[in-house]
Amino acid sequence: MRNIELNMNNFIINKLCIIGVGLIGGSLARALKKTGTVREIIGTDLCAENLIKAKDLGIIDRYDINIKRAVIDCDIIVLAVPLGAMKTVLMEIEGKISDKTVITDVGSAKRSVVNDAKSVFGDLPAGFVPAHPITGAEKSGAEASFAELYENRRIIITPLETSSKYAVNMVRNMWKACGAEVVETSTEYHDEVLAATSHLPHMLAYSLVDTLACMDGKREIFDFAAGGFRDFTRIASSNPIMWHDICLANQDALVKILRRFSNNLNLLSNAIKDNNSSYIKGTFIRAKKARDEFYESKN
Amino acid sequence: MRNIELNMNNFIINKLCIIGVGLIGGSLARALKKTGTVREIIGTDLCAENLIKAKDLGIIDRYDINIKRAVIDCDIIVLAVPLGAMKTVLMEIEGKISDKTVITDVGSAKRSVVNDAKSVFGDLPAGFVPAHPITGAEKSGAEASFAELYENRRIIITPLETSSKYAVNMVRNMWKACGAEVVETSTEYHDEVLAATSHLPHMLAYSLVDTLACMDGKREIFDFAAGGFRDFTRIASSNPIMWHDICLANQDALVKILRRFSNNLNLLSNAIKDNNSSYIKGTFIRAKKARDEFYESKN
Repeated sequence: MRNIELNMNNFIINKLCIIGVGLIGGSLARALKKTGTVREIIGTDLCAENLIKAKDLGIIDRYDINIKRAVIDCDIIVLAVPLGAMKTVLMEIEGKISDKTVITDVGSAKRSVVNDAKSVFGDLPAGFVPAHPITGAEKSGAEASFAELYENRRIIITPLETSSKYAVNMVRNMWKACGAEVVETSTEYHDEVLAATSHLPHMLAYSLVDTLACMDGKREIFDFAAGGFRDFTRIASSNPIMWHDICLANQDALVKILRRFSNNLNLLSNAIKDNNSSYIKGTFIRAKKARDEFYESKN
Repeated sequence: MRNIELNMNNFIINKLCIIGVGLIGGSLARALKKTGTVREIIGTDLCAENLIKAKDLGIIDRYDINIKRAVIDCDIIVLAVPLGAMKTVLMEIEGKISDKTVITDVGSAKRSVVNDAKSVFGDLPAGFVPAHPITGAEKSGAEASFAELYENRRIIITPLETSSKYAVNMVRNMWKACGAEVVETSTEYHDEVLAATSHLPHMLAYSLVDTLACMDGKREIFDFAAGGFRDFTRIASSNPIMWHDICLANQDALVKILRRFSNNLNLLSNAIKDNNSSYIKGTFIRAKKARDEFYESKN
C-alpha cells in the first residue's frame, strides 16, 4: 500500500548519507529501503565495527569511515549522532557540501544543534532543517534497528528562517515515507515541550533510583518494589552518556521545568505534612483525570 | 500440585470473613477457594451492590451487609478496606470476636493500622497480625479479582509483640496457600521501605502529570509525549482516594523520603545548571547500574 502511494508521489532520494548508524539512523535506513524511497544509502560512523555490522545486516549499501568523503554528492545528510558529537560531525562536513545538500538531524534538543551549526557554518546553510523523531527506546545500536520504528510516530521538524522550502519538503517527505506523522514547531517550543514530557521524567527516574541506591540496605529496598516500580524506573536504564548530553543541550528549558516541578512537589509534600486532604485529593484527582483523558482519547 | 501439597499440610480455614470484597479481598477469596484452603467465605462490605456481585461471581459463599453479624464465629477476619476506613471497621467488630479470632489486614501502611487498633481495642488482641500483599494494580472491584494475583508475590507481615504464635502462623499459612512468599519485618521498617519504593514513586507520577496538566497548552504537551511517558505516568491513574489515605497513613516516612528525594533532585538540577558533567554522569551511571543489576538478577 505505502509503496504504491510513494511511487505515485514520485519521492525518491538518490543518495542518502547517514552519520551514526545506530537504532535511530539504522531504523531510518531500513524504513526508507523497505518503502523503496532511496536508491543508495552510505553509512558513516565514528565506530568502524558498527559500520561493518550495518553493512552485513543490509541496513546500508556501503560505508565510508571518512565522514568528509562519505557525504560527497549526497542529497540528504542525516546526523544521527549523540548531541555531544554534533559539533564535531558538523565540522567534518563543513566545506564538503553543495548549496543543494539537505542536512537534518535527530537530536532530542534543537536549540543546541542550531547553535552548533551557527558556530561551525557562520551563516546557516539553506539546506539545514533540524528534526526530532519522538520515539522512546532504551535499546541502541544497528542490530536493534527496525523498519517500523517510526510508523505512526511523530516527527517534529523545526524549520529555521534560513531553511529553504525545498529542504523542508525533502525532510518532511523522507519522514512521511517512514510512516511517521510530521509536525512543525519552533525550536524554542520543541525544547520546552520535550523538557516537560521527556527530559524531566528521565531526571525523576534517574534521581529516584539514585536516591534509593544510596540508602542503607538498598538491596532489600529494591526487593520490596512492586510492578509499578519497574515500569516507573524503566527509563533510568537509558544510556547515561546520551542523557548527559541531552541535559546540557537543553539546559535552560530543563532547569526551568525542574524548578516548576520541584515547587509543585514541595507543595504536595507540605500538604501531606499538614494533613491538607483537599489539596492532596485535588492534585491526585486532577492528575488521574488528565492522564486517563489523554490515553483514552488516544486508544 | 499445590492442592495436594496443601492437603498434606492439613491447613484448612473453617470460616473466613473478608471485609471489603474488592480486587485484593476478592483475589484472596478466589485463591483460597482454588487451592481448597477454606470451607466457607463470608463477605461483607460497605457497598451492598459489590457483595451481590461477589456472590454472583462465586467469589464468596455468602454475604452479610451487617459487619457485626458477618464476623461471628469466623476463624480469620481479613480487613481489605482502604486505610481511611480501617478504624470504622475495627469499631464495628470490637466486642464481636473471641480470643481465638485471627484479625489481619492488607493496608499499604502498617503503623496507622496498629494505631487504629490500639485506639479501638485499648489492649491489642493476641489474634491481630498486620499484613500487606505487595501487588501493583490500578484496577479495582470484585470483577477485577483473580486467583493468581498473589502467586510468587511478596506478602509482608509485621507481627506485633502482642501477636500470638498461633495467629502469626494462621496468617502466614493463609498467604502461602495463595502461592505468595511471606516475609516478616517490623512495622517501622515496612513503612519506610514502602514509602521509598511505592509511595514516593506515586507522588512523583501524580505531581508530574499535575505539573504538566497545569501548563498552558497542556493538550499539545501531552500529544508530544512518547512511550516512556506512558509507562512512567501509569501509576498516576491509580485511585486518588486510596492514595490520599496512604499518604496520610504513612505521613512521617513519606515526608522524610520526599525531602531526601527533593534534595537529591535539587543537586542534580544545580549540576545541570552549572555544567557539572561529572556529577550528572555519576548520578545516571549509578542509577542505571542499580536498576539493571536488580532487574537482571530477578529474571
